[in-house]
Parts: sequence; C-alpha cells; structure tokens
Amino acid sequence: MADSPARREGLAQRPVLDVQGGQVQGRQDQLAEEVPVALSYDDAAFAVMMASPGDLEDFAIGFSLTERGLALDEVVALDIRPELEGWRINLRTRHPAAVQARTLPGRSGCGLCGSRELEDVLRRPGPVGQGGLVSARALENALENLQAGQPLNTATGALHAAAWCDPDGRLLLVREDIGRHNALDKLVGAMQRQGLSPQAGFALITSRASYEIAMKAAAAGMTFIAAVSAPTALAVDLAHACGLTLVGFARPGRQVVYSHPQRYQGSR
Amino acid sequence: MADSPARREGLAQRPVLDVQGGQVQGRQDQLAEEVPVALSYDDAAFAVMMASPGDLEDFAIGFSLTERGLALDEVVALDIRPELEGWRINLRTRHPAAVQARTLPGRSGCGLCGSRELEDVLRRPGPVGQGGLVSARALENALENLQAGQPLNTATGALHAAAWCDPDGRLLLVREDIGRHNALDKLVGAMQRQGLSPQAGFALITSRASYEIAMKAAAAGMTFIAAVSAPTALAVDLAHACGLTLVGFARPGRQVVYSHPQRYQGSR
Repeated sequence: MADSPARREGLAQRPVLDVQGGQVQGRQDQLAEEVPVALSYDDAAFAVMMASPGDLEDFAIGFSLTERGLALDEVVALDIRPELEGWRINLRTRHPAAVQARTLPGRSGCGLCGSRELEDVLRRPGPVGQGGLVSARALENALENLQAGQPLNTATGALHAAAWCDPDGRLLLVREDIGRHNALDKLVGAMQRQGLSPQAGFALITSRASYEIAMKAAAAGMTFIAAVSAPTALAVDLAHACGLTLVGFARPGRQVVYSHPQRYQGSR
Repeated sequence: MADSPARREGLAQRPVLDVQGGQVQGRQDQLAEEVPVALSYDDAAFAVMMASPGDLEDFAIGFSLTERGLALDEVVALDIRPELEGWRINLRTRHPAAVQARTLPGRSGCGLCGSRELEDVLRRPGPVGQGGLVSARALENALENLQAGQPLNTATGALHAAAWCDPDGRLLLVREDIGRHNALDKLVGAMQRQGLSPQAGFALITSRASYEIAMKAAAAGMTFIAAVSAPTALAVDLAHACGLTLVGFARPGRQVVYSHPQRYQGSR
C-alpha cells in the first residue's frame, strides 16, 4: 500500500473567497476529505471514526493492533466498501468468539472516547522492548524530509502525518490523516503489512503527543516516538511506565526528551 | 467561571532533557494535564473523554447542548467529583425519561467516534439564525489578543483554545483544552451560563475546523466561526447546508471564507 492510488485520493475542491490584504478574490480551494469509517469485527459493529479516506487497509490493521491487540495473522480477511454515508470495513478474524469476548460492554473503540465508564478508560501497556539508539541527527534528517512525504497536507494544510524512520532518520513510510490517532494507526498497519520491526527505528508525528498517541505507540511495540509539538503529562507518565522514549518539540536544532533518554543520543 | 481558579489549574511539572544546538540540559518542564472525564445523565453513564481538568462545569453544559440538545434550563443539577481515575460528572435533568430515550444504542457521545453504526454518525443541524456581520478587522483584532487569553497553552504549547468575540473582535470568553472539541464545548457552556447570545459575535478557534467543530458550532446556535487553520470538505459542506459562515486560515492580513460570505466584510 506504500504507493497505492488511495494515498493520493482524499482531495475535494470547493469555491472560496480568498481575502489577502483587503483584496477579495474568488477561487477554487483544495480541501481534505473527511469521511465516517465504520469498523466491524466478524460483522459485529465496533466503532465509527472520522478519517481521511486513503490507506484504509492500513488503518484497519493498525487500529486492530493498537485498540484490540489483534496481530496481523489474526485477521483472515478484510472487506472494505464504500456506502452512501462513508466507508464500511469488516474484518474476519481467526478466533471470532475470543474477539467478541474481548469487547467491553459500552466500549466502542476510538481510543478512550467511546468508553462509558471511567474505570474502562486507562489502559496500562506492558513494557516495550529494548529498541535501538536514535541520534539527534537522525531526528533532524527525518524532519527535513517529512514535508515531501505529506502531499495531502501540502495541498490542504489539514492533515497530520505519522512517519516510520530507520535509525539514520530515513523515512520508510509516511501516512496522512485528518486525525492524528488515525495517522498513527495507518502507519502501524502499514508497518505490519510490510514486515517492519517497530524496534528498529522510530516514529515521527507532526502533532502533539497525547495519552492515546503514547498508548498506541506502545501497543504497536514501538520503543521511540518523537512529536513535533508538546506531549501531555499523562502521555509522559505512560511512556515512563512502559519504557517508551518520548521526544517532544522535535525541531531542527531542538528536542526535548521526556522519558527514557538512554535511547537518545543528543550529540550530532 | 470566567475567572475561576480551575482555569489556571491543569499544569504539571516533569523533569526533561532539553537539547538545543547539541547542548543537553536537565530541567523541569511545564506540561498540560490530561484526564479522563466521565459524563453521566441521571446516573446513566454516557461517555468518557480525555480533557484538560479546568472549567468542567462549562464543559458539561456545553457538551450537553452540542451533543445531546439539552439547553441549560433542562439541567437541574451538576455534580462534579474527582475520583482515582479522573473526574466524574453527573447531570440531573428535568426530564430524565426523555433524555434516556434520546440515547441511541451504542452511541456514546464524543462527537461521532462513539458511534458503532455508520448510519448514526452524520447529524444534520437545522438552519442557523441570521446573525450579524463580522469584519476582517474584527477577526484580526481577536487574533491579536488571543494568545493573552491562553495561559495554559503559553506555558505548555499543548492546548487548543476557543474564544467568543463580540462583533468588534473583543474577546469576551476564552476556554482552553487539550482537545479542540472540548475547548469549543467549554466555550459553548460558558456562553450559556453567562447568557451570551451565539448570534451576536463570532467564535475563533486555534485549530482546524472538522465536521464535528462545524456541527457543534451550529448545534450551539452560532452563525459565524473562524479557524486559524484549514477546514475539511465535510465541515464546509455542513456549514453551507445549515447557513453557518465558516472562515479558515484566519490570520493577520489573510482569511479564506468557505461558506455564507454574506456575513463577512472583507474590507478593513
């Protein structure tokens, strides 16, 4: 899916008035599509998310790992179809009864916001693996090249990206979505489908790092994630607890390391 | 609540390594708190959202209007209490049976992401009112003063803001949250509690404008909303359909008007 046509879909044109310095001009603007995507497992509805319509196979596989603990080999078939209201994805799993039993009552998937009960919300991921070292130079290499991997955001200014980078900061995969959680899920799914180890490199995201972002990274087995903007305190606490290295404000010439600095090599 | 102590809460300190130009320095960093907030109506659990812990009364009242159609006078009591895992809010309503009957099965509140079924997701708000005119100068006035109303974001870089501005662009209310939907819900709740008309002025948000943002603005009765960043195509379509004026890329010297430009006065 790395170069599928779906990645370049997701654009719509609308007429706008563009006002610059008091001059009003009508033109066509490029906008990001936003569609409801309904996920079901063995025909049982699980959740609906608003998402960008590209890379939906990656999204389904990644979401299933980070939110339901389902590895790629537990998914035996993936059915993705457009409907009047949006997209419908059904995953057939190897052990349907076990998957349905794991569905908490009232919990419907999108990170935590589908939960109805306070006690159901916070998950505690197990410890992540050892992972490798990441240098400041590798982070900066990745940052320099990230925009070139974001065609939809370049056209619209409306999408987040999540990138997977090798230890030298080369971008191996980039996924875009209007939702930052979805972008990370798409990346996780693409990595599984291409057999990339989540310990041999690092993730770079263009957004802030919330609890759900750190949770998804850990659930995907990553050991190092860098965010262009700030983390929340809860994201940092989760990263501390599970062994994840979390870098925030990742920018050329500046990074802030919030947890497990043993994997970060600050000197360039 | 405009000046409640709760607004200035929500900060946490954590030790970090700050790396600038190859120099590594340990220091304490200010981070935004992120907590689960569980909402129930007449003791029936409805949804849990991750949010900033300030202005929770405003949040409960605003969310109830934008997601459940409950006006302020339908809420007879508000109980907000901290628990081990986060915050629990229970609203007592004037007509509990009617409120429970309006709860779709499987739908759990946070915009759309709690929905399990594709058909439940997209809501169609009724037409908004006539509203007033907003000039480019008013927008720019509001933008100039917005940062001063964002103490938590100034400290952490991690929060969105939603502001309510009078027709001249004076900021009457600003609410901050790690989630942009929550910031808007807090603003809507504060407006209701202070009796501000959603037609006499405009909302300004520091984020992008997604479908859910446009939906919440319309559900709150607003007629004009401006976002600092891009809208999605679906947000624009919804704004067109319900009569809402949607401005994106609201910046000094530049605005893009996506829908209903009759309320926008481009000349300064």
